Amino acid sequence: MANDRAADEHNPDPEALIESTIDRIAPLDRVSMKAASERLDRLTKPQGSLGWLEDLAIWLAGASGQPMPLLPRKAVVVAAADHGVARGGISAYPPEVTAAMVQNFLAGGAAINVMARAQGATVTIIDAGVATEVVPPPKTSRLRFQSRRVGPGTQDMTTSAAMSEEQARACVAHGIEVVEELREAGLDLVATGDMGIGNTTAAAAITAVRAEAEVADVTGRGTGVDDAGLERKTAAVQAAITRNQPDATDGIDVLRCVGGFEIGVLTGVILGAAVNQVPVALDGYVSGAAALIAQAIAPQAIDYCAAAHLSAEPGHAIALERLGLTPYIELEMRLGEGTGATLFLGHVEAATRVLSEMATFDEAGVPEQDD
Amino acid sequence: MANDRAADEHNPDPEALIESTIDRIAPLDRVSMKAASERLDRLTKPQGSLGWLEDLAIWLAGASGQPMPLLPRKAVVVAAADHGVARGGISAYPPEVTAAMVQNFLAGGAAINVMARAQGATVTIIDAGVATEVVPPPKTSRLRFQSRRVGPGTQDMTTSAAMSEEQARACVAHGIEVVEELREAGLDLVATGDMGIGNTTAAAAITAVRAEAEVADVTGRGTGVDDAGLERKTAAVQAAITRNQPDATDGIDVLRCVGGFEIGVLTGVILGAAVNQVPVALDGYVSGAAALIAQAIAPQAIDYCAAAHLSAEPGHAIALERLGLTPYIELEMRLGEGTGATLFLGHVEAATRVLSEMATFDEAGVPEQDD
Repeated sequence: MANDRAADEHNPDPEALIESTIDRIAPLDRVSMKAASERLDRLTKPQGSLGWLEDLAIWLAGASGQPMPLLPRKAVVVAAADHGVARGGISAYPPEVTAAMVQNFLAGGAAINVMARAQGATVTIIDAGVATEVVPPPKTSRLRFQSRRVGPGTQDMTTSAAMSEEQARACVAHGIEVVEELREAGLDLVATGDMGIGNTTAAAAITAVRAEAEVADVTGRGTGVDDAGLERKTAAVQAAITRNQPDATDGIDVLRCVGGFEIGVLTGVILGAAVNQVPVALDGYVSGAAALIAQAIAPQAIDYCAAAHLSAEPGHAIALERLGLTPYIELEMRLGEGTGATLFLGHVEAATRVLSEMATFDEAGVPEQDD
Repeated sequence: MANDRAADEHNPDPEALIESTIDRIAPLDRVSMKAASERLDRLTKPQGSLGWLEDLAIWLAGASGQPMPLLPRKAVVVAAADHGVARGGISAYPPEVTAAMVQNFLAGGAAINVMARAQGATVTIIDAGVATEVVPPPKTSRLRFQSRRVGPGTQDMTTSAAMSEEQARACVAHGIEVVEELREAGLDLVATGDMGIGNTTAAAAITAVRAEAEVADVTGRGTGVDDAGLERKTAAVQAAITRNQPDATDGIDVLRCVGGFEIGVLTGVILGAAVNQVPVALDGYVSGAAALIAQAIAPQAIDYCAAAHLSAEPGHAIALERLGLTPYIELEMRLGEGTGATLFLGHVEAATRVLSEMATFDEAGVPEQDD
């Protein structure tokens, strides 16, 4: 880890930061939710006729603490890291792709760059522990990058814990700090994204443990592994759980045993957003796994999360069920990076504008529903 | 009809316009679709990992006739008209709401205004036959309005045909002309929208006839009618079909017997878009009914249509099945106006940008999938 910054350069006491964060997460703002709900019923449309978009508007009011939230400053946080387990032939891509894709993010050529741009959202790339340290972009770049390396990739979880307990706390603390830094520049909503060859293997292990699910039911083809690879992947998930025996009720322990540095950072992002009343748009399976860990650490944090979409990965539905979240979009996407979450940002924008910009029956002089 | 312009002020020969339009609708551009599909497979993501968004990109290439379409000029056409059947207690709202809501559109306060603005789409309101003639907005208004009145609302379809054959052809011709006019200002994609108290009753009758479905299965609560109202509505749909005996294979006849002026205009919009290689984003149930009529007139026009969303109206799924279209979004919306289609416009924007703006594996120097 000679090339890697120690966690304490960023934060001297991750445990204290995590504890103080979870202690301060408040329930959703019910007063704002009631006000939003009542306003929706006065707008010039049949009551409830915008379906889930109305539920979304009410939730955004509760999570943001504003009866008529406008959420223009949307940020996608893409955390990247490597996984020791990826050397075991469990992915359709070689581990080097993690670093190469991070460079692609920094050059603006990846799906997340394009799709975030289409929604007017910023993208912040976090190196949480890519095997080869990421070369930061030039300062002239419009892209945001933070080096928050916890290590040069995790250990192979089939033969040891993925990381130390100290590293697990460090990555969660990093995620909390990422949100704090984004807030200084202005942040109304955060979307989660991930990059890491091997990370759907970690997500499967986390989901199996946290949702008490069969390994075969939560292990999918990820980026497109073939039948033999899927068999190796399923065996690796089972081996990792058997070897490490994670405590499902202890989020840090699950992260330590079978997690990933980028997953831990996203867990921290969720906790940091919740404490700051910033709504979270969860992307797919890896983000769902991060939320499952956040749920074990601070169940009330999940109130601040929406499931943007349902991934094609079979375990994602199981993760969402455990989280108690219903996905908004179902397009069989399975790319990660935050791409599913960006599509959902358009729905968020529509929901907030409906609440703020539509005329009421009174204002428009439109007759109301017959009794 | 003293206050209403005759159809031939706009077009002297609706029948000839319709015939020449349907004769010129070409198949989708397979060369552009193949190019788009091949490019998607070279972009820096696992093949197929953007799910339906990739299918959407390929279809947009085929419908627009461009291998890498950029479709910035998106227009929502909201056609409004009244329905004679609405006097029979089949809606939760009084018929006067049609005119009041059109004024709300023109004041910019309705859901479609707000949601189209969020997507950078224009809104064009068409008075296809509101009971009381719509006062046009001042010329300074940013809102686009066209008076294309075919009559002061349709006849009550439970006691006579909804309109004459001449009127049926006139509204379809109007819709074709609407697209031609929009194209002069620049048009890359059109979304359909509707307003008309009573028009889900007409949509139910059209769907029952065209999809050979049970009336009870295609008749829903529309804007929110109560149980007694739903019973009256179902009876009205059945009575209209029994009274008029529409020929399911003849789109103009279905429109004449049980249609609506705004539905006919939307049918024309679909035909006009198809002939001009302009992709169509269909909104909900009423737009689906317009597409069912377009399908009877020119089946190849439906190739140019995407089902933006699945409405909460139970008949919509039946209409889409008959059209052979799979909806992209399912949020239990049932407002109409084009609101579901506007949400989909964000997905269209994402799909086109992915195709045009993402880096290929070669460009980014990212290793490709293992063999």
